[in-house]
Order: sequence, then C-alpha cells, then structure tokens
Amino acid sequence: MDRSIFYNAHHSPVGAFASFTLGYKGPKGGLGLELTGPADENVYIGLEEREGGRFRALPFYGGAEVAAEDYDVEGLSDMRFANALAPFADDQITRQLGAGIDEWKAGDLTFRIISPPREVPDPDHHDVRDAVAPAVIVELTVDNREGERERRCFFGYGGSDRYTGMRLLDEPGLTGVGQGTTFAIASTDEGLYAGIGWQPEAILTPRLKENLPFMLGSVGLVVGTVAPGETRTFRFAVAFFREGTATTGIRARYLYRRWFDRIEQVLQHALEQADATVKIAAQFDASLRSRLSDDRAFMAAHAIRSYFGATQLLEREDGRPLWVVHEGEYRMMNTFDLTVDQAFFELALNPWTVRNELDLFVEKYAYEDQVRFPGSSELHPGGIAFTHDMGVANAFSAAGQSAYEQAGLCGCFSYMSSEELTNWILTAGLYVAHTGDLAWAEGQREIFLACLQSLENRDHPDVALRNGVMGLDGARCQGGSEITTYDSLDASLGQARNNVYLAVKGWSAYLFLQDVLNRLGEPDAAARARRQAERAAATIVAAKDENGLLPAVIGEGVDARIIPAIEALVYPFVAGLPADFPELRATLQAHFEAVLQPGICRFADGGWRLSSTSRNSWLSKIYLCQYVAERIMGYAPDAEADRAHLAWLLDPENAYYAWSDQMLEGKAVGSRYYPRGVTSILWTASGDRPLEEIRSLLVSQPAGVA
Amino acid sequence: MDRSIFYNAHHSPVGAFASFTLGYKGPKGGLGLELTGPADENVYIGLEEREGGRFRALPFYGGAEVAAEDYDVEGLSDMRFANALAPFADDQITRQLGAGIDEWKAGDLTFRIISPPREVPDPDHHDVRDAVAPAVIVELTVDNREGERERRCFFGYGGSDRYTGMRLLDEPGLTGVGQGTTFAIASTDEGLYAGIGWQPEAILTPRLKENLPFMLGSVGLVVGTVAPGETRTFRFAVAFFREGTATTGIRARYLYRRWFDRIEQVLQHALEQADATVKIAAQFDASLRSRLSDDRAFMAAHAIRSYFGATQLLEREDGRPLWVVHEGEYRMMNTFDLTVDQAFFELALNPWTVRNELDLFVEKYAYEDQVRFPGSSELHPGGIAFTHDMGVANAFSAAGQSAYEQAGLCGCFSYMSSEELTNWILTAGLYVAHTGDLAWAEGQREIFLACLQSLENRDHPDVALRNGVMGLDGARCQGGSEITTYDSLDASLGQARNNVYLAVKGWSAYLFLQDVLNRLGEPDAAARARRQAERAAATIVAAKDENGLLPAVIGEGVDARIIPAIEALVYPFVAGLPADFPELRATLQAHFEAVLQPGICRFADGGWRLSSTSRNSWLSKIYLCQYVAERIMGYAPDAEADRAHLAWLLDPENAYYAWSDQMLEGKAVGSRYYPRGVTSILWTASGDRPLEEIRSLLVSQPAGVA
Repeated sequence: MDRSIFYNAHHSPVGAFASFTLGYKGPKGGLGLELTGPADENVYIGLEEREGGRFRALPFYGGAEVAAEDYDVEGLSDMRFANALAPFADDQITRQLGAGIDEWKAGDLTFRIISPPREVPDPDHHDVRDAVAPAVIVELTVDNREGERERRCFFGYGGSDRYTGMRLLDEPGLTGVGQGTTFAIASTDEGLYAGIGWQPEAILTPRLKENLPFMLGSVGLVVGTVAPGETRTFRFAVAFFREGTATTGIRARYLYRRWFDRIEQVLQHALEQADATVKIAAQFDASLRSRLSDDRAFMAAHAIRSYFGATQLLEREDGRPLWVVHEGEYRMMNTFDLTVDQAFFELALNPWTVRNELDLFVEKYAYEDQVRFPGSSELHPGGIAFTHDMGVANAFSAAGQSAYEQAGLCGCFSYMSSEELTNWILTAGLYVAHTGDLAWAEGQREIFLACLQSLENRDHPDVALRNGVMGLDGARCQGGSEITTYDSLDASLGQARNNVYLAVKGWSAYLFLQDVLNRLGEPDAAARARRQAERAAATIVAAKDENGLLPAVIGEGVDARIIPAIEALVYPFVAGLPADFPELRATLQAHFEAVLQPGICRFADGGWRLSSTSRNSWLSKIYLCQYVAERIMGYAPDAEADRAHLAWLLDPENAYYAWSDQMLEGKAVGSRYYPRGVTSILWTASGDRPLEEIRSLLVSQPAGVA
Repeated sequence: MDRSIFYNAHHSPVGAFASFTLGYKGPKGGLGLELTGPADENVYIGLEEREGGRFRALPFYGGAEVAAEDYDVEGLSDMRFANALAPFADDQITRQLGAGIDEWKAGDLTFRIISPPREVPDPDHHDVRDAVAPAVIVELTVDNREGERERRCFFGYGGSDRYTGMRLLDEPGLTGVGQGTTFAIASTDEGLYAGIGWQPEAILTPRLKENLPFMLGSVGLVVGTVAPGETRTFRFAVAFFREGTATTGIRARYLYRRWFDRIEQVLQHALEQADATVKIAAQFDASLRSRLSDDRAFMAAHAIRSYFGATQLLEREDGRPLWVVHEGEYRMMNTFDLTVDQAFFELALNPWTVRNELDLFVEKYAYEDQVRFPGSSELHPGGIAFTHDMGVANAFSAAGQSAYEQAGLCGCFSYMSSEELTNWILTAGLYVAHTGDLAWAEGQREIFLACLQSLENRDHPDVALRNGVMGLDGARCQGGSEITTYDSLDASLGQARNNVYLAVKGWSAYLFLQDVLNRLGEPDAAARARRQAERAAATIVAAKDENGLLPAVIGEGVDARIIPAIEALVYPFVAGLPADFPELRATLQAHFEAVLQPGICRFADGGWRLSSTSRNSWLSKIYLCQYVAERIMGYAPDAEADRAHLAWLLDPENAYYAWSDQMLEGKAVGSRYYPRGVTSILWTASGDRPLEEIRSLLVSQPAGVA
C-alpha cells in the first residue's frame, strides 16, 4: 500500500453533528460542531524525543496563533519560548484507517482515535445514552522501552470558537482543556497535567508550573510522562456539547441532553464506557476488512465516518426524537434524495430512524401540487409530493417548503417533486419490507394511496395515454421543469421528465406500491400500481436503439448514455420483491454492458463516468450501481475502477474534505464532506437478504423493530 | 466638520456583550456577540433610486458570499441576478454620532441606530427588563416626496455564525431574518417582506415571490416600499440572544433570560418599548452635546458606546446578578485596573454594579501573598491582594487566579498585586463616598483593615523605614517584579515598585482608608493610614529635581517624565475628601506644567504623550489626566490636544476598531475595541460633586443606592 495517508477523516459520535476531523496536514482538522467542513484548528499530538528537551508531533498544526505581541505592543515582555517542536517526517508516519479506529504510528508514538459505527436503538423504547454520548475516544501510547529517560507526551489543540476562550477544565478527576461549554478533551488517567499558552513549548516545558493556566493562550495541551523502560497509554475523550435549543423552525435540543447537563459529564461517561467502545470499534473494523477488498474496505470505512459526522439526533419540545442527517458541506437537513440512498445503511443499523424521517416528511414536508405539460399553462390534477429537504444548517424550513427548491428554473435548484415522491415510496417500501412493520404501514394507508395517485397523475392525465413514466412537471415549477437528485448534471441526468434513470426509479416505486397496497388489502390499487410498472417497463424496453442502448431521456432527443439507468434495480432486489421483469432486466444489463466503456461511461483512469456527456461523476451512486452490476447482473467487482475511485478521494486537492461525492474528472467540486457514501455498505452483502447481512456486520444483535 | 465619517462604532444593548457595529467601509461591521472585534459581516442598508430598478446602499458590504457555484459545479443553473446595487458616493453621505443615536443620511435615505446609554437598576430590587432587553433599535426613513414611483428600501445582513444558517423568522407579527436562536433583525411594521438569497438583488427584485425563502442564501433582507409623495419610516429591532450557559468557571446565564426565552420575544419587547428608547437616546445626546466641545462630545459618545458593548450582565446559578465588563479586544473579565477607571461612570449610572464587582473580587479573586525586596529571596509578611482580572472570554479563572498574570517576569504579563490592591481600596472608597452605603462598608471591615496592613507591608517590613511608597514585590512574582496597568510601557510607567504614578495612587488609597476606617470606628487604623499618606506625600515631594520635575521611578535612576504622576489626584477629589496636601498638590502641578511640552510629554501633533520615553500613549488615561489638569489644577481645556486625540481615533488605520486606548504615535496597536474610554465622562462635570452631576446627565432620576 503506497497510498497517501494525509487525508482528513471524520471521527464522530453518533447523532451529535460533530467531528474530530483529522489527517490532512497543517491546521486543517480539529473539533468541529455543526460545520460545513473541517474546523481548521491546530491539533497537537506528539512526544518528547529520546534525547529529551525536544519534541516531535504529527503534522497537524502550523497556523498563526494569537501571541504576546497583541498585548505587548512594544515587545517588552519575555514570554517567548524557543521552538522545540517539529513534525515527524512523512516517511516516519504510518496510518491505518478503519471505520471505527484510525491509528497513527510515528517513532515511539501510537495515536488512535476510536469512534465505532454503532446502532442507536429507538429512544422511545431504549436508554440510548451509551450510543449517543457526544464524544470519541483517543489513545496516546508511548513506547519508551528503548528510552533512557522520562519522556513527555501530549495531546491538545487550539480552539476556533469565536465566542469563548480556551480554558482548563475544573472538574474533580478530569484533566483537560476545552472551549466554553461546547468543546473539551480530557482524561481520567493519573499523572497528567493540563496547560494553556501561546505555544506548545510554554506548556511542555514551563519555566514555572504556576504559569500553566495562562488563559490568554490559544493552545491547550494535556501532558503526560512515561518512565524509561515502559510503554504507557493515556486515554482521552474528545467531547462536543450543544446545551441550548439547537434548531429553529422546529425547536429541538440534542437528545443527549436527556442524560447530560454539562460537557464534563459527557467526558466522564465516555471514559467510563471506553473499554466497550474500543472493543466494538475493533470488532467492526476486523469484520469490514474480512468482507471487502482493501480498497473497498477503505472507501466504506471513510464513507461511514462522513455519514456519522452528519448525523444529528434531536429531541423535540414534546419529547419526540427527531433524526436528521445533514447534507455534508451544504448542511441541508434530511435531503430526501440522500435519505433513500442512505436507507440501506440506516435500515440495517436502526430502522426507526428511517421511519422517523418518513413520518416527518408526512407531518410537515408533504405538499399537494398540480402538474402541467412542458410549454403549456394548462393545469392537470397532480397530488402529493415531498420537499427536497427539511431546511438547512439547523434551521428547519416552513411546512411544505425545502431550503433548496426555487420556482421558474430548469436546472439546479428547481423542484424535485416527482423524484422525492418516488423516494418516499421506495424508502417506506424498504422500511416495511425490512421490518415487517405493518402497523406503521397501516397508519400510512392514505399516504400510500395518495402517492400512487400522484405518481399516475404525473405520468399523463389521460389514463389511456399513460406509459408509466413521468411526463408532466409540477405547477410549483411555474413553467420551469423538475430536476433529479443529479441536480448539477446536464439534461442526461438532471432533467426529471422522461429520464430513463427516473423511469426505472418510478417502475421500482410502482412495484413497492403494489407490494405494500396488497399487504394493506387494497387489491385494486395494487393492480393499478402493477399496471403502471408494466407500462414503465414496456416504455423503457421500447426506448432502446438498434445497438441496445437506452437514451438518457426518452423521446426528447437526449441521447447521452447513463450508468444510473440500472440504479433503481437495487430497491426491489434489496427488499426481496419478485424479479419478474426479465425483459427490462435484460435491456438494462445490455445497456450497462455497452456503456461501461472508455469514451462512453468510463474515464481514462478506469473510474466510472455516470453520464457520457458530463465530466461530473458521483461516488455514492457509482457504489450503488456497482452493487447492482455485481449482485443483480453478476459482473465481477471492477477492481480497476475501485482503485481509480480511491485515488480520487485521496488526491491532495480532495483529501481535505474527507469523503466527497461529486467528482469532476476526479476533483471534488461539490458534495464534499458528505454522508451519502454509505451506499458502499451494500458491497458487504453477498447474499439474498442483504439488509440482514449488513446488520450482522454493523451490530451483533439480530435485526428487528424496537 | 470635515472629519471622516467612516469609522466603526458600537451600537449595543446594556449587559448583552453584544454590538451591532457599523461605520467602517466594507463588510466590517454587523451583529457581533462576545467577540474580540467587529463581526466582519455584510450589512445592507439602502433604497431604490427615484428612477426605479436600481438601488443605492450605504457602503457596508462587498465581501464574497457563498454562491450558486458551490452547488452547481458546472454552472448549469440561472440563479444569478444582474448587479443592481451600488454604494452611495462618499460625498453623498453624512453622519452624526451621539452616544445614543447614530444617524446616517444619503440621498433620500435616513438611517438611524438607537442604543441609549442607560441605567440598570439593581436587579435584586428592580425589574430591569426594559434596561437589559438585548436589542437596539433601527429606523430606516425614505423621503419619497420628490419621487414619482413607489420605491423599495431595505435593511439586512449576511450572518457570520459558523454553526447555523440564515433563516426567516416565523413569528406572528414579526417580519425579519436571523441566524439560529442567537441573532435577528425584525420589524412589526406593516407592508414589509423578508427574503434570503445569495444576492441582495434576488430579494429586492425576485423573479417569483415564492423564491424569497431561499434558505441556502447567505444574505437576509427585510424590504419595504414607500409610495410616491410620501415619507415613511420603518422601525426595526436588532437583537442578540445567548440562550444557554454563557460562562464557565462560574456557571451563569445572561440575566435577560429571566424575561426572555426566545429571541422573538426580545424583538417584540424592544419594538414595543422603542418610543421610550428613542426618547431617552435623543435626550441624552442633546444633553451631552450641550456640555462639551464638539470634539469632546464626539469622543465621549464614541467611548461610551465601546463601554456598553463590553458589558455583560449575568445571573449565577443561585440567582445572584453578576456584572462583567470585558476588556475590549482582549476580553479579560472585570480587569481591575479598568474597573477603577470606569468606576466614575458606573457609580454615577448604577452604583450596584461597582459593589457587585468589589464583592466578587473579595469572594473569589482576593489572595494572600508575601513580599520580597528586589534581588532578595527573603520573604516578608505581605497580605491581601487582588487578581488583575476574573478570567477571559466567558471563562472565569480559578479562585485567586487571573487569566493574565504570570510568574517570573519583569514586564508585560507579570503580577499587578499592589496596583490591584490600591484599586480595590479606591473603588470601594469611591463607592462608599458616593452612595453612603455604610452597611456594605461595615461588611467589608476586615477587608479594609487587611488592605491597610497589606499596603503597609508592601512599603517596608520595618515600620520605621516606611516611606509610603511600594518597595517590595509579591512573592508570586517568583523573582520577577510587579508591573502597573501600563503593562506594555517601559519602566517609566510599567514598573510598579517606587513608581511615582503608583506612589500617588497609593497616597490616594491611604486617604480613602483613613476616611472609611474613621467611618467604621477604627480610629487607630485610620491614623495609620493617614501617617502613610503623609509619608507618601513627603517621599514624592522630596523626589523632585532642581527643576521641580519628578522622576518616573523614585530613587531607581529612571528619570523619564510621566503625565500620570497627577492621575491619582482624581480619586480624593471626586469623592470630596479633604484636599489638605498643598505641597504635594503644588509639586504635582509644577511637574505637570513642566512636562506637558513638546519633546517631553507632547507629541508633534499636540497630543499628550504619557511618558517621555515611550511612544505609546493611552487615551483613557489622557482623558483622566485632562480632568485633573482642568478641574483640580485649573488649566483650560487643551483643544489642540483634543483635536489630535480625535484624529487618532478616526485615522483610517484605527477607525475599524471603534474606540481604542493604546496609541503608538497615533496608531491603535493594542487595547482596541475597548471600554475604558468612559473616563471621558468626567469632562462633563464642572462642579464639586462630579458624580451627582454626571448622574444628572446619564439618568433623569436622582442618585442613590437601590
């Protein structure tokens, strides 16, 4: 393995919308809460050299610090310490990243950050304190067996919160530093001391110990010593704590506030639970590595981290839990076209979060709309649809409104009504299929029926003229046209109407409606859904050209070729719905095989190009289509493509953003620091009950609804 | 008046540690909470041109905004609006700044920010909701009498909080925008709408009104319209709200939380009270202008604003109020050498805040120390002293510790034990003299006695060898030496031991001890204090050279000349203590007259140079010494110096920082954005009962302790 090791990765508690991001060189990581990207703080991790007096650190610092000159304008004070800290050379450093443990080694130092993927049971029925305590564990080990003198080691940072200064914790049993009530690192180990200063050296080698609590300083460190001949590990917690009302629009606090009133309590609890946390993380990492190629295990681990960094578990004023996944750098909340892709991961891990998202879409983020043909102002009956998202950056949007969608547009920022409608159906269908929660489905009977009606109406107002494919745009577009989740692509994937990607997604949605409505004792409606699925399949099959290739947009002269034509095959397969559309299957497979070629849907480096006419490819969707190609169509894993995709993520221009989705010829240009890559979890499922199989990887207990 | 109008000024509620800072060109002001300086946000204030379709704004914007490209990586969407907004030309704009009202006029636009200086009565006995509601009022007036079409006007900003996105308020009766639960602007006026976008134009001239709540946008505006032939004023509140625990070390929340749970309640309340607020502000400004020269009225108004921006009224967990003044850009909390200078202003306005500060110094920030002679390690009895500050940036320091003081130093960041000891005595003495609160003095009997003993011990361990002047440094210095509040100056003002500035301050402190201890029925102790005052006076008088000049440091060969030798005359004078040291008075006056000359203590521009050997001069202290020179010594106001001092503040290199203290040859190099300039309030007092006189300016009710 000679891949670069200097990439940022999330290290996040579950549901805290927080990350101790680390790995990109310079002051580019640190303690981030609710941010669009890394906190860009100095992080200090290191130890004293064997000879003593000088120190080596991992290369995660280097920015300007506030210094004495700001106070002492004529430089009359002698507060400066000679520089005694240098970074390890790159070639002295190794790193191994799993989803749960990120381990660095350099010289006699081992530094591990432990933040396992873990289930959050339904908070309505379980005490989820351990799962949602907003902290990650850090271990700092010094191997001083070869050393002949006592050596210091240290862990600390310079906080970037504008509102508060660095402080020493003042809590019995804890040694630590932090910022305000919001950020802290601390240990309960013996023999440590903490200090604040303008330079690490002022804390590592203080002239007088009385000067350690220099609160004007911008750097806080916790320092330990290791005797000669010994190996010693210090364990820390890195905690995040938002005390007050966390969101507007829907006023909510973090659910962890049920158990924690102060960050010091979080630190204590996390350290008490640390043995178990480390064990869960190590087990998970071993299991993930055993199931995947090295490249895939890495990408999956990296993606899972970025997902958890975006999760936010809230509690509404009436006590109901509220699950949010923020959209990476954009921070849109529960963007529905991410929810559906992340549903495989969430359903396997904690299906109640999927139900929670679906419920809030029904409660607040559904709306009724009419539809019209392109170029016409005549309105036709439409029906229910769902918003693109629920707001942005801790601000929930108004009822029936997203943060994103704007009227009068034909490209990016237009409405996604039809796709979000299919997303509710598919996500709800997956939930019902996986959990068997018919009581919930029963409660949503009217919604399922309304979804069917709306999906039909968006095909054609005249039943006789329906072809199973979306043909009308929502009235909310006000003359614009709907788009798909591929919002920043050209018409090959960006336009919703008659898009072959969305056509297959619609076909898939009809199959789920058939299944659920049958279970709900609605045979007539189920039959209508079946009929629409058949129409869709027929329309798609009929669209292929003489070479068996499908156009990106059916019947509108957009002959671009797109891989995601096959994407929506994933839903019925994962749900175990009957696979009784052999001609559609064969058509899509033939299309796929024909387009996955250099010059069409493959980049020069072997990476997958989602659309033949766009340079913009999306990793989360590639992962999904890889699963379809391998598990449904039977192709072997494309190791060359995996290598290319991994190289994109680790490109020095991209590696700052942890896991990113949108890659413009391999450069992360959008959707950075992004949660959607957990579609990769499907790689781990080789059998016919993929969600159960994934659950067995993610948690030790069997699946089920709480 | 041709002075520059583009300088930042604070516009602050009382006790909210918040400021709507505005006035420096560019994105250099905005809604700041708990910051070291301006928030650096875009602020949009303007109106449509008479011709319609294009807009003019005050020049407080221009930074980069998040834009569509971050989402739409290939630029496929048409979200961009043609630029229709331009700043007014500089020569079209006028400004008039008072302490309460800051008024801008440009074309047909008038923009006023109203934030009057106001008393906070003791919260233990009064409902102070009106005084501490964390909001300021804004009025936007359009004179469209000459206009022939309806014209839009607008007020808004782009928030800089990292943790939340811009949002539209969702509260019946309010039209506004904000960020999180923390920042908002809103109006209750009819006929306004609010929007969010990436450009002001997207909100001013939306293609479709449905697109106004575009929550991905970085700019929020409230827009009104004014009919042709009419003049209309829209009134807004600009509010700040910190909901949770605001401080660590001592856990406290903002006291305004007693009445407000949400920022929307603050906005509503502030707007309901706005008529009264505007009236108080206008009265105050008229009164201030009537008492002072134009230059002085300006500087006093500017300084009062920066003081209020640093004030923070908290409530401890047990319900007790806690008053903090943060130290401007440094944010140190209740820095004692500022408290004593700000005491004139605070005592006149709300004496309980001074008592509150003194009480917390006794409760948590007093300590016992021994003392030693320079160069000697022998320890001698010392006694009580007080910390330099109580912490920094919302982090209270540990008991008996400041954020600032470090051991082992001889310059900046060393201990200020002796000066802070005099500061407690002087501040407490002023409080008792002004309020007559003998019950409080009685409760502090042991502290007053301990202060006397400590002050004596810091003179000389052998009573027979005492000369009334500090001669020993605190043991906490660990071989270093104590400094004065002039920490960044050279030995002329920076060294505490034998400093003539501190010697006069000590003399003054002994006089107050004599007074208070007499009132407390401690005649022996009072006599000791008197004896020490006499010794100090004799020592100072004896120190003058053949030309009548005093050295900066007595008997240590530091012959620099300093204006602040006269500074401490202010305390007994303001308190009305007997002025029975004619020889000292005459010596100081002769010294002052001799040093206030070009080449000694005057800069080339006529500004006062505090020390002949330093280029660093401090405006707050100059103001104080001006008062001494004029009221005690009888010199005429030095209008040339006032002009120079004003020019320093308005220098384009300084004007960003609102009111600043430390000026290195006229450049603000430290202590910027600073509260201490309220020493200027003494200029308004021409009589023998200055605090009563100031109170009559600051509030309409008579003085007194609640």
